[in-house]
Amino acid sequence: MSEADLSQKNVPQERPDVPNTLAERYASTPMLNVFSPKAKNLFERDFWITIMKGQAALGMDIPQNVIRSYVKVRNNLDLESIKRRERTLRHDEQAKIQEFNELAGYQEAHKGLTTRDHEDNVEQFQYKRGMMIVRDHAVATLVRFGRLAVENGALVMADRTHLGAAQPSLAGKIFSNFGEEMLIGFNNLETLIEEYPLRGIKGATGTQTDQLQLFGGDQEKVDQLEKRVARALGFKNVLGSVGQIYPRSLDFQVTAALFQIITGPSSFAETSRMMAAAEIFTEGFKEGQVGSTAMPHKMNARTSERIKSLKRVVLGNVMMMGQNAGEQAFGGDVTDSAARRVAMADSFFATDGILEAAMTVLDECGFYPAMLQREMNRYLPFLTTTRLLTAAIKEGVGRETAHAVIRDHAVAVAINMRKNGTQENDLLDRLAADTRLGVSKKVLADAISAPIEFVGNAPRQITKFAGRVEAIRRKYPEAAKYNPEPIL
Amino acid sequence: MSEADLSQKNVPQERPDVPNTLAERYASTPMLNVFSPKAKNLFERDFWITIMKGQAALGMDIPQNVIRSYVKVRNNLDLESIKRRERTLRHDEQAKIQEFNELAGYQEAHKGLTTRDHEDNVEQFQYKRGMMIVRDHAVATLVRFGRLAVENGALVMADRTHLGAAQPSLAGKIFSNFGEEMLIGFNNLETLIEEYPLRGIKGATGTQTDQLQLFGGDQEKVDQLEKRVARALGFKNVLGSVGQIYPRSLDFQVTAALFQIITGPSSFAETSRMMAAAEIFTEGFKEGQVGSTAMPHKMNARTSERIKSLKRVVLGNVMMMGQNAGEQAFGGDVTDSAARRVAMADSFFATDGILEAAMTVLDECGFYPAMLQREMNRYLPFLTTTRLLTAAIKEGVGRETAHAVIRDHAVAVAINMRKNGTQENDLLDRLAADTRLGVSKKVLADAISAPIEFVGNAPRQITKFAGRVEAIRRKYPEAAKYNPEPIL
Amino acid sequence: MSEADLSQKNVPQERPDVPNTLAERYASTPMLNVFSPKAKNLFERDFWITIMKGQAALGMDIPQNVIRSYVKVRNNLDLESIKRRERTLRHDEQAKIQEFNELAGYQEAHKGLTTRDHEDNVEQFQYKRGMMIVRDHAVATLVRFGRLAVENGALVMADRTHLGAAQPSLAGKIFSNFGEEMLIGFNNLETLIEEYPLRGIKGATGTQTDQLQLFGGDQEKVDQLEKRVARALGFKNVLGSVGQIYPRSLDFQVTAALFQIITGPSSFAETSRMMAAAEIFTEGFKEGQVGSTAMPHKMNARTSERIKSLKRVVLGNVMMMGQNAGEQAFGGDVTDSAARRVAMADSFFATDGILEAAMTVLDECGFYPAMLQREMNRYLPFLTTTRLLTAAIKEGVGRETAHAVIRDHAVAVAINMRKNGTQENDLLDRLAADTRLGVSKKVLADAISAPIEFVGNAPRQITKFAGRVEAIRRKYPEAAKYNPEPIL
Amino acid sequence: MSEADLSQKNVPQERPDVPNTLAERYASTPMLNVFSPKAKNLFERDFWITIMKGQAALGMDIPQNVIRSYVKVRNNLDLESIKRRERTLRHDEQAKIQEFNELAGYQEAHKGLTTRDHEDNVEQFQYKRGMMIVRDHAVATLVRFGRLAVENGALVMADRTHLGAAQPSLAGKIFSNFGEEMLIGFNNLETLIEEYPLRGIKGATGTQTDQLQLFGGDQEKVDQLEKRVARALGFKNVLGSVGQIYPRSLDFQVTAALFQIITGPSSFAETSRMMAAAEIFTEGFKEGQVGSTAMPHKMNARTSERIKSLKRVVLGNVMMMGQNAGEQAFGGDVTDSAARRVAMADSFFATDGILEAAMTVLDECGFYPAMLQREMNRYLPFLTTTRLLTAAIKEGVGRETAHAVIRDHAVAVAINMRKNGTQENDLLDRLAADTRLGVSKKVLADAISAPIEFVGNAPRQITKFAGRVEAIRRKYPEAAKYNPEPIL
Repeated sequence: MSEADLSQKNVPQERPDVPNTLAERYASTPMLNVFSPKAKNLFERDFWITIMKGQAALGMDIPQNVIRSYVKVRNNLDLESIKRRERTLRHDEQAKIQEFNELAGYQEAHKGLTTRDHEDNVEQFQYKRGMMIVRDHAVATLVRFGRLAVENGALVMADRTHLGAAQPSLAGKIFSNFGEEMLIGFNNLETLIEEYPLRGIKGATGTQTDQLQLFGGDQEKVDQLEKRVARALGFKNVLGSVGQIYPRSLDFQVTAALFQIITGPSSFAETSRMMAAAEIFTEGFKEGQVGSTAMPHKMNARTSERIKSLKRVVLGNVMMMGQNAGEQAFGGDVTDSAARRVAMADSFFATDGILEAAMTVLDECGFYPAMLQREMNRYLPFLTTTRLLTAAIKEGVGRETAHAVIRDHAVAVAINMRKNGTQENDLLDRLAADTRLGVSKKVLADAISAPIEFVGNAPRQITKFAGRVEAIRRKYPEAAKYNPEPIL
Repeated sequence: MSEADLSQKNVPQERPDVPNTLAERYASTPMLNVFSPKAKNLFERDFWITIMKGQAALGMDIPQNVIRSYVKVRNNLDLESIKRRERTLRHDEQAKIQEFNELAGYQEAHKGLTTRDHEDNVEQFQYKRGMMIVRDHAVATLVRFGRLAVENGALVMADRTHLGAAQPSLAGKIFSNFGEEMLIGFNNLETLIEEYPLRGIKGATGTQTDQLQLFGGDQEKVDQLEKRVARALGFKNVLGSVGQIYPRSLDFQVTAALFQIITGPSSFAETSRMMAAAEIFTEGFKEGQVGSTAMPHKMNARTSERIKSLKRVVLGNVMMMGQNAGEQAFGGDVTDSAARRVAMADSFFATDGILEAAMTVLDECGFYPAMLQREMNRYLPFLTTTRLLTAAIKEGVGRETAHAVIRDHAVAVAINMRKNGTQENDLLDRLAADTRLGVSKKVLADAISAPIEFVGNAPRQITKFAGRVEAIRRKYPEAAKYNPEPIL
Repeated sequence: MSEADLSQKNVPQERPDVPNTLAERYASTPMLNVFSPKAKNLFERDFWITIMKGQAALGMDIPQNVIRSYVKVRNNLDLESIKRRERTLRHDEQAKIQEFNELAGYQEAHKGLTTRDHEDNVEQFQYKRGMMIVRDHAVATLVRFGRLAVENGALVMADRTHLGAAQPSLAGKIFSNFGEEMLIGFNNLETLIEEYPLRGIKGATGTQTDQLQLFGGDQEKVDQLEKRVARALGFKNVLGSVGQIYPRSLDFQVTAALFQIITGPSSFAETSRMMAAAEIFTEGFKEGQVGSTAMPHKMNARTSERIKSLKRVVLGNVMMMGQNAGEQAFGGDVTDSAARRVAMADSFFATDGILEAAMTVLDECGFYPAMLQREMNRYLPFLTTTRLLTAAIKEGVGRETAHAVIRDHAVAVAINMRKNGTQENDLLDRLAADTRLGVSKKVLADAISAPIEFVGNAPRQITKFAGRVEAIRRKYPEAAKYNPEPIL
Repeated sequence: MSEADLSQKNVPQERPDVPNTLAERYASTPMLNVFSPKAKNLFERDFWITIMKGQAALGMDIPQNVIRSYVKVRNNLDLESIKRRERTLRHDEQAKIQEFNELAGYQEAHKGLTTRDHEDNVEQFQYKRGMMIVRDHAVATLVRFGRLAVENGALVMADRTHLGAAQPSLAGKIFSNFGEEMLIGFNNLETLIEEYPLRGIKGATGTQTDQLQLFGGDQEKVDQLEKRVARALGFKNVLGSVGQIYPRSLDFQVTAALFQIITGPSSFAETSRMMAAAEIFTEGFKEGQVGSTAMPHKMNARTSERIKSLKRVVLGNVMMMGQNAGEQAFGGDVTDSAARRVAMADSFFATDGILEAAMTVLDECGFYPAMLQREMNRYLPFLTTTRLLTAAIKEGVGRETAHAVIRDHAVAVAINMRKNGTQENDLLDRLAADTRLGVSKKVLADAISAPIEFVGNAPRQITKFAGRVEAIRRKYPEAAKYNPEPIL
């Protein structure tokens, strides 16, 4: 590599720290505190303590003072010490057990458990907890969609299809449309949180033979222990027949649910970008987006762009978990392991980062009503030619004649505006001047003077959406109050 | 391209027919009859008729004899004629309307509708119908998993982790494990079928302004029409606030649900391949898999391999729909169109092909008990060293001594078997011969003579699983009777 | 399914035809004639004939009149008859061999070959041929990018970043930027076409043992036969050490190369959509895009939208082939088969459809210079504040003062334009009126009167790009003349 | 969340450190030292210094002592300080510039550059450097494949298709097959490293207008500066016509190339798993894989499983970069940014982790010859029925008779072995005993006594492969000596 001045000669060759980018830049603090190594290790110790308490309560010989010793050292967490042990033992799990046992001074943790008995359950706990945070942040996002839908529920705008003006609608409907998309994902996530089943304590191939032996063949006690653990972890359902691991399609289901819930915000972000490009909207008045010296006119929708970027990450994570799913041979192995370590935490971080970003945009964004009006002036005559037709017919013009005249002029105006770069739409003037019609400009202008008449059921749709959001707000009042952290 | 003898000179340059491979080779007939062009066109005509009936019933001026004219020509379907019209009109939808109107002799179809009012709803009908077929075929697959779990519910085998023998278990548990994975996807699909919301009649930007105008501003009638349509299409839920299209994340959700339901069968297929490789199982006694002259010993798990291959297709389809989702700007456009045409039908075809293949394997597969026993002979002493330890201690040997002796011999035997290619496991003989233990071979052999003792809760797990399947069978008795078509 | 009026009662339950959507709607005729079942079968027969000729030439006892019999019936292709045989034999390949042999009246085809000897090589031939068509259509696309870059090489426009006006540039640079992106993919594809290695005649596990036996152990003759086949198929390279199949990562490489070549056109399509939204550009004056009665002003970029949609399909195909790659156990099996059948042909169809669409847009598109000018009027003062600063300083204003005055006014104007919906940018007027500057409007206006001065090296970049395209045009003169088929 | 004992009450709510899992667990030190924040920041400073040197050399007024001041503080890197600045400035790049300038005491860094001028070029430098490390580690992996192919180049084994014994081959061919797959990816990567084009110094929309202005319109000097930078970064090619960013399809190309190079190792890992399951091979004699007390017989292919898992990660990363590609509008924006931050580094880490793991397996793995022989004994008669046929015919038996007799017995033996769980293949005994043949067992046994005769061209294929690897070893002698770091 001698060809480059930018040589690595001065880069030290020890293993440097490399942080998780999604955690560092995008995810919220509550989410980090579910998936950080520190949090994971503490959950793992809690799990061991829960098991020991359960085993003791069900008659196994584990004295209370032993359990208390474990409880006492629970927070005495030295990640470096565990890492050192791992390098010697070449086994992640053994290192953690050894550390915890030595701190407590006993050897009672992890009794009759396999690594996956411990890890699968704790990881599922993390995922469920992560889903609950996503749900809560989704509530806070939906509340914002609801609020903005209502606040902009009387602001008429030229809504678009194929990015071109198509029909008058309400600005608030942007929020109710994409908010309703989010609601579908929200309901799906709520169901998943409710139904998501825990693997439970099943042993090396899922037969529970080790716990069964510890309890002298008493199936009832094995069941009791499993139920205690499920309750402690907050799970209603426990899987019945599994191998060494819970089915990895559950990981696919979780990441797919995360992906689905961010599609509404992502579509909103896409629309936000387009509206900013048309200067009818800004995702934020802060951040020097209006007012910087260098480019005083720019309203870069950077946070909306970030949402779209993180969405691509989540879909990539779904792809990873899709590859893991449906590939289990017999009881399982670790072909899923590295991919799960990456994709599960990352999909939560990226999803959370999207919600943080979406809330920030929704808190700071706004329309420029004068610019919306300017667009209406430009497009309204085009969007309401049927109304002009009706007006002309009412004035006694023949339908065929009226249709032909209006069509010809409309096309001419449209072409003219682009050919000449004119802003003003003079369709009404031209029609008023056309003797074949003989209809005054006032009559024509009156026919389309109230754009709100053209928005159909948009007001009712917004109201209904706001009602659905209100019900969610009432169901999760604390979550609804959440405010995003400042974004980088 | 003159370098190749295999030139294209003789290949005619007209546009040849290219069939959809998944439809031709893998999907079942019922599924094809939801997604074929013929079926689609007939559904579209049904939809128009439903709309006309509804509009007439709600007071619009569409005479009954006009509607009857449309009903009469409904089956008069000439796909070539429609294609010719499309080439002239350069518009798919216009071609279909024109054809139907001309056949009926009226111009009442598609009144106040946009293309997506028509197409989105009919396509959602197809997807829901497709999901119901998948659900039904999943029922038939689950019934087979249940039956085989029970049938093999007393057959002991050496279950594996990391593809290596790990613990004694029951052969039936292979079916209950992956059957239970399928159950999770089944429940998810049932919920989706129930909740899946129809777009409804919403117009160009979702405001319903066109229908509203046709009904003279009577919102109640617009609601009534939409409800009639939803009922006719079999939908309980209708979306409230949308743009020109229903949110494309629904397509992601549907394909993700399809993917999830085939992960259980796919994991089973993976395990089936491994078991066939070990000659303990065959996916089919038919198909000349045992008995062909050329390779009389081969039990190629070709159908299991097919399942895995089709799974990759479905995941690719999920990725296509994932890219479509969250990308809507304003009311929408056709950036989703070509990808939907490909991925939606294909994911149904591939999923259906997997279920057809899985049912075929489940109908024709079987274990070789003697081969399972042979494995048990080889591995059981290794899998039960703790039991041997207990037996020795009972005979009065010190725990430490017993542990060391058993460990040393076990390792030596394991190494020896691979080094010498021996089949027999002589661990018991060696232990019996070791004077440090002084335990007879009979005592040792007795300790591990009943492998069924080592399978823990496997019997109960199988019974519970079978019970859950039975409940599903009772809920869908007709679907449970379905038999797959012969596979290629 | 009784809840729906739209019942399937009237849908006949035989297996209907389902065409490949991508083939039917998007791919070009030449591409269909590589991947149609008809073409495939003819290539397969050519392959068998090539083998027989080679075997005969190298001394095997296959009389010339036998080979002539096969040649004579080569075009006598009855796909239905082959299908019937397949249903009986339950084997694709056997059915084809039997049909060909019976037609010819001999049993000499497929001598010493395995199914994959036949199929892998023929399929690789199809892929190579497909890549050559893509290359040729890419040449024709690049030529269009080159032409438009030059044609618009003096047309100044406000180029954008984050969708907002950023700097003056040339309209032609839109084409040279995305054309250059395409060039990278083009070079990659050219290399792949050149290097793409054929599997060759290797037998069931790759050891060539069957051919070797047929040739009495003469390795030289086996080599000769393989070389003849490679030459006939147009391949320079042949793999050396393989299993039953060529490595499936080659399929990933091919689809990834297809994907890469369409990213330039896809980015262009994205930009085309944005430009159409801003009414500065249209992807086509045809297709009633300007001039339809209903929406006379709409310039829907439908073909650009199609390009983006098909891109998503290709990426999904890449994901299918990515799952196939790196999964080979020993000599291989058919876990790759169904996915290859779908993704390989589809990725060629979709890629080809994108190029057809891109060429159509490039042939029919155009800018609206007056609209570009209108944008320049609106943004130029913002984009050239540094030039205004210099002008003021030249007139004797202090740098600090000039900077502060210009910044304040620029921000005010930008805010004002959006707040009031004004089109005109009055920055120069405000600066001229500000006594702190004391610089006349003429001086200021003169400073920015020639926008072409602000486009930097854009002209030279366009010229260089055009030169590179010209070299490609000269290398592939026939391909450069290709015109796309009319698109639906 | 009060339902869970495992509450978060005790988890502190500050932002915890979350390391990048792939970096922490799998990637090699050299790779970390390309992508760590520390390395990135140092490269960025080197880049600024290179620019200043170039600008000074080309006549811009930047005194040498100023540049020396920057050089002097280059290693004075305080990431925390930069982070603090970022939180204030809300701009990553500005924070870095400010820190560097303040350390040096001047304001000359980043002159005439945009953020992407700086970041895109430095990131491309990282990617190229990363590719060179991958190439070097691939060399070291290939050398191992070559060595093992030769070392096992006379060891006969029953090679498999569909996981079942198919033909005798050489154990060494496992390595040459998958090594050759890797060679294809290696050649592709070499080409990409060579051709990979740098974005260069192009400014905000790619027109180079800022540098051009700094150099008073002297295009030659702008070219010179760009060439100097490219040379310093080790790039031969520089892009000509771009926007604010280099085309993001280059990121797809890089990740796709990484994916391709790991498919050979991944297929090897898949085969390694299958061979370990059959107990004919172990991926490592270390790691207590033979000899642990608990499961003395297990040869878990954990490292091979890891390879497969990391492969799924890389494909997910390819999916992320595929979504970024082809989506550029005009000059670009930051919709690609978060996804690039994640997928580019991660794909290098995961690829590198795969190569580390593959080298470890290749260094420590081995066959069990006795087990291979045991398989040969079991399958050889089946795999050589044609040879038995020939032997019988030579002895005077009629072809038809011989064929029928051999087929019947072969099938019977195959069925019998599975039905009875017998290890021994008694086909020869049965044939010898069949009076219809009248051929002695010795004659039959002699016919198949030298399995090496059945391996066809395998020896020559291995030799050729080894030759190709040797050429690479000679080209990269230093890289060939690389040894992987100890893996966790």
